Parts: sequence; C-alpha cells; structure tokens
Amino acid sequence: MAPILLNCMGNDPNDYIKQHVQVKNPYLDAMEEDILYHLSLSNKTHNLPEMFGDIKFVCVGGSANRMKAFAQFIHQELQLPGNPEEMIDICEGTDRYCMYKVGPVLSISHGMGVPSISIMLHELIKLLHHAQCRDVVLFRLGTSGGVGLAPGTVVITDKAVDYSFRAQFEQVVLGKVITRSTELDEGVASELLQCSSELQSFPSVIGNTMCTHDFYEGQGRLDGALCSFSHEEKLEYLRKAYEAGVRNIEMESTVFAAMCRVCGLKAAVVCVTLLNRFDGDQITSSHDVLVEYQQRPQVLVAHFIKKRLGHVV
Amino acid sequence: MAPILLNCMGNDPNDYIKQHVQVKNPYLDAMEEDILYHLSLSNKTHNLPEMFGDIKFVCVGGSANRMKAFAQFIHQELQLPGNPEEMIDICEGTDRYCMYKVGPVLSISHGMGVPSISIMLHELIKLLHHAQCRDVVLFRLGTSGGVGLAPGTVVITDKAVDYSFRAQFEQVVLGKVITRSTELDEGVASELLQCSSELQSFPSVIGNTMCTHDFYEGQGRLDGALCSFSHEEKLEYLRKAYEAGVRNIEMESTVFAAMCRVCGLKAAVVCVTLLNRFDGDQITSSHDVLVEYQQRPQVLVAHFIKKRLGHVV
Repeated sequence: MAPILLNCMGNDPNDYIKQHVQVKNPYLDAMEEDILYHLSLSNKTHNLPEMFGDIKFVCVGGSANRMKAFAQFIHQELQLPGNPEEMIDICEGTDRYCMYKVGPVLSISHGMGVPSISIMLHELIKLLHHAQCRDVVLFRLGTSGGVGLAPGTVVITDKAVDYSFRAQFEQVVLGKVITRSTELDEGVASELLQCSSELQSFPSVIGNTMCTHDFYEGQGRLDGALCSFSHEEKLEYLRKAYEAGVRNIEMESTVFAAMCRVCGLKAAVVCVTLLNRFDGDQITSSHDVLVEYQQRPQVLVAHFIKKRLGHVV
Repeated sequence: MAPILLNCMGNDPNDYIKQHVQVKNPYLDAMEEDILYHLSLSNKTHNLPEMFGDIKFVCVGGSANRMKAFAQFIHQELQLPGNPEEMIDICEGTDRYCMYKVGPVLSISHGMGVPSISIMLHELIKLLHHAQCRDVVLFRLGTSGGVGLAPGTVVITDKAVDYSFRAQFEQVVLGKVITRSTELDEGVASELLQCSSELQSFPSVIGNTMCTHDFYEGQGRLDGALCSFSHEEKLEYLRKAYEAGVRNIEMESTVFAAMCRVCGLKAAVVCVTLLNRFDGDQITSSHDVLVEYQQRPQVLVAHFIKKRLGHVV
C-alpha cells in the first residue's frame, strides 16, 4: 500500500482518491521541486505532509490583520494549548500573504481582487495536494457592500455571479477566454445558515454574491476618481442586480468558487455587508462598529467548525 | 484669484489647469467629506494640502516591504534630514496598503493584480486632487517575468498590452465593458532609458509589457494547480507575445497606464525581470540575487528623480 493510503478512513481506495485534494495539472508530480513562491514554501525545503497533513478547514480573507485575529479567535474557541498571542506567520519569508495554522484550521490572507486571491489559491491547492490533505472545506470570510440589506447582515453565497449576473468565471488561458462554473456547495451553505439560527446573534441570509474587478466604477460608486454615470443609472444597475438575486458585492468570490469546484473542494463564501449600497457609497460606520461587523463571519464559521469537530452539538 | 491658483508657476491660468491633477468625477467636489477608506485618510480629518501638496513623484509597487525599503533608499539618496529607520506608515490605520512620504516623493504599495492597484489608484488620484498637487509623475516599480531577456534586465514599458497584445484596458462600468488606451508617456520612458545608460549598472530596454489577470494559466505557466496545455503550446504563446513586442509580463500595468492617462498624469512602468520565461516557470534564483534585482528599478527611478531635482547633472 502506498504511504499516502495509510490512515485512509474509507475501505475502498477509490473513496480516498475522491476525497483527496486534486490538482488538475499532469506535470506537477514529475517536478523535482515545487516552489510555492508567494507563500515562501517548497515541497523540498519543507515537510508539507508533516506541517499540514491534518488540515480540515481552510479560512481565507483579504486582510492580513483580520486573518491573524481569526487564527487567535479560533485558537480560543477550540481551547487549544499554547499562547495565541505568540502565533507564528508560516509565510513570514514573504509579505505577499500571511498564514497561521491552528490545529486542523488554516487561516490565510489573500489581498484584494481576483488576481491576488487566484495566486494564493493555486499555491494553497498545491500545498494541500503535496501535504496529502483529505476532506478539506474552504471558507472565504470577507466584507462586502450590501444590496437591499441592513448593514451588518451576513450573506452566505448561493451562487457567485459576474457583472452580468451570470454564475460563471472567465479565465484567460494562453490568450483564449474560457468560462468556469461558480456554483458552491449547497450543503455547506445550508449548514452555515443553520449555525446562524442557532447563534441568534446577527441576521444571515443566503443570496447571490456579485464579484467585480474594481471597487468604484464596476460597483457603480459615484465617489471614485472616475465616474461617468448618474445617481439614477447607478440605482437602476443595483435594482437589476437585486432582481437577479444579488444581495452583496465583493471582489473575489467567482474565482474562489470556480477554482475550488474544478479541484473538487467543498467551499463557501461568507461575507458581512458594511453598508446598504441603495443608501450610499462611502463606508461611514465607526471603527468599532466595523470591527464588530467583521467578526460576524468569523463567529459563524467558528461555530460550523466546532460543530463538525463535535465541540458543540 | 482662487486660492488654488496661488503659487502657480505659469503665467496663464490654463497652464495651471493642465498641470493640476484632474479627477474625472463631477460629483466629487460637492461631497461634504471624502473618506479614502482603503488609505485610512479623509479630506475632513486630515489636512491633505498641507500633508501632500508638495508631492512631485509618486512611486508605487506591489510589496509593502519593498516600498518601505524604497522610501528609506530615496531618503538617503536625497540626503534628507532625519532617521530613515523611523519612517512612519501614513496608512497605518489599515493593512490594505502602506504609504511613506519622503520630501517630494510618495512611496505606496498596491498589492497584486489589477483590482488591487485600481482601488489604490482611485484613492491616490483623489488624494492628489484634494491636496492640489501639480506636475506629478507616477512610476510603477515592479517585478516581472521576462520574455526573451536575461534575468535581471529592467524593462521600461513602451505600451502596456492585454492578453491579446492590444494596448487597451477593458473596464466594466455598470455592467458594460468599455475600453481605455494604455499608452504611457514617451518622454519619461526615454528619459529613464537615458538614466540607465548614465548609470551603466544593469541592462535596460524599452519594450511592451503584457498585463495578465493571473500568474499561472494566463501567463502560460506549467506549474499551477491547474494546467490544460502543453509545453509546446506555452512556448508558441510566448513566441507570439515576443513578436508583438512583449518583453515582460506582470499584473498591473494596463490599469495603471489607463487611469493615469484618463486623469492627465504622466506615468511610467519600470519592472525588472526575475527569469526568462522561455527557460522556465519557477523563480529559482537565490534570495540575495532576487533582492539585488528588485533594487534595480529603484536605483533607476531614484536617478531620474535626482536629475529632475538637480541633485545630479
């Protein structure tokens, strides 16, 4: 039996293969070394199975500070030994991303926008593959603009959609545009909504999430350096988005959904809304209110993880 | 005479208007407050003209550490008073970007990819507008993959081109795709090439720069989590790029060129190549070699700034 099949939970080796994190690259296993450049890791200089083999939950979010705070929070929630204040950034050799491991949970930052998260996801998925991880669930924990929702509402994404409200992601491969589906795991989304009703701490909804490639013109904001449309045209676009089921707007969900789907990874997007875009463009809530809002996706996903691990029933 | 016309260098007020940083948003000046959310600044809580009014050169780059190092380097080069080790991050209220001011030079990080730099540029251009800055030149100092060049070569961008080698940037505005020109300032590019021949420290060329939206499939890398093409198909794409005048590949130049052009800002892109993509995909040079390569755009732009300020002749 190959070493990677030891500790396999299923009886049939095929079950294992299905659960294993799959890269879709025939060249990868033949490479002498795989340098995960933007994570400052490599499968030659680091023992990735030993470092990461027990990972079951990967939580990603834009801000480095927020993902460090999440790592400290989940450390407390799982009542793990050690001082959460002394947590080490596994990617400290680079300032592109930060990464913290807390028991079976990995917390990673991804910066802002589709290209930034896509680099991280390529290297993360290769990392999970090299580390022989199985049964991994991925979560994006983020902030967003709400569409017809009160600020502070948590949106669990049904479908990640593009600027035309299509559930697809356009990827350029060698100069040609291909499209990939952005459907997420329905089971994980329902389980998250159930967690929210158990917590009774803040409102959560399941809705579509629109992913744009900029924060200003693409999201219909009137307050960028460039603006060529009227207030009424902005509202009309937001109304069309609402009618298409869009409840929030952010900048990473389509590529996150598409890449996880292609690689057979269960994934969910959980973002809090910082404002209702029908009411304005600028984020004017106080620092303290915004900090509390940003904790909501963390509280929800922490509850999900604790339930899965049997810490709460 | 309006206060913003005081200290005007030209005799004709129209000269001033032309040189002034222009936002293209009719609503902006009527806003009671403009919160530059991702920079953690506002025109109400900060005296932007006092803080930034003397800025003449803005240098942007992906990595926060590198842009801090550049701020310290230009501080030494301009022989300014004070300890460069004690430099304060003006955006310390957020971890999205970092920003350092060194005399007339502003050094800012922008993360990776078009969406990330576009958020920063919207807020930077509004900042320069609120601060009433004039005659500003912008530089992007970056790293890139080389196309047919020896590693370590500095590419001064002629035209920033997309995945089909077109000198344009596609921007979505309220669900519609518009295109913007990505031509950069020819004069600044020639002046930079002249600086390089004066320095005689490393090879520099003027060539087209291809801007992609990811690091792996879009750039034809065989080492991502996903790869659906052959080595030969990759080389064919790179050969076509070379024939179209492309000498390097990075991930921010098109939107940088397009936004600067729309706002009447002179701009240049100066990126060092870390590898020759005809020879491979992974960045395998040693840490020390990569650090030295990354200093080359900084050395070149520092020489340009010193010449403009009359520190060298």
